[in-house]
Amino acid sequence: MRRTRFDDAHCPVARTTDLLGDWWTPIVLRELLFGTTRFNDIQDRTGISRAILTQRLTRLTDEDVVERVRYQDAPPRYEYRLTDKGRALWEVLVAMWKFGDEWMFDAAPGAQVELVDRATGRALRPVVVDASTGEPIELASTRVRLRR
Amino acid sequence: MRRTRFDDAHCPVARTTDLLGDWWTPIVLRELLFGTTRFNDIQDRTGISRAILTQRLTRLTDEDVVERVRYQDAPPRYEYRLTDKGRALWEVLVAMWKFGDEWMFDAAPGAQVELVDRATGRALRPVVVDASTGEPIELASTRVRLRR
Repeated sequence: MRRTRFDDAHCPVARTTDLLGDWWTPIVLRELLFGTTRFNDIQDRTGISRAILTQRLTRLTDEDVVERVRYQDAPPRYEYRLTDKGRALWEVLVAMWKFGDEWMFDAAPGAQVELVDRATGRALRPVVVDASTGEPIELASTRVRLRR
Repeated sequence: MRRTRFDDAHCPVARTTDLLGDWWTPIVLRELLFGTTRFNDIQDRTGISRAILTQRLTRLTDEDVVERVRYQDAPPRYEYRLTDKGRALWEVLVAMWKFGDEWMFDAAPGAQVELVDRATGRALRPVVVDASTGEPIELASTRVRLRR
């Protein structure tokens, strides 16, 4: 049975779900964001099957999230590079990282890995704020309305 | 074939994927976050099947994301309330909202709906920053290391 698609939904969360809700896709994007670009390397680092990885990369290419680029001619070899749209998924993955780290491990302090600033080595603590005010976007003080 | 689980992964993104990667789950969470608490109401607003909604709410209850609370005795009726863990998913959904709005609609300005501040009515523009500095967390200036 074909599952319901959300790619024509009015809700932006539903549309993103249509893209990220494919099992394995956020894991593949994690690898691409951290600089892994080749099929075999992504497969080695994640343990994904070749069939599923092929399907996911094809979908991500169709959606303009990655670009398939030939990096060698004989024999032809390709790598996968994130587009601007693909790099924009970074923020979603950072938010998923934070939630996973804080809530999906049994014992504090969470995951064995952490996000750090490359220059200073300081651990980062992500928070979602409004760009104009710099204040956290709180559920209780937010509502949805039709765009004018 | 049982799909690979990510619930014992070292990576926080993978663990969050294990929870949010179930098809429909982010849509159900959207309804819960915006105050829909009853089974039939969630079903009406999303178009999800009863069988899938039951499965998703059971999983979310097992994961301590929602709490099933009896609100009427005769006949017994239940509603679903987000726990602290459930409310923490708000930030992930806000990040998904932003990405969807900016990248998943064909024409600007994106979705017909927008997030606004309840008090001022001002449109919100989410950005993921570091809590200490208030600076955006940029992919190029972030790396992963083992937690000390």
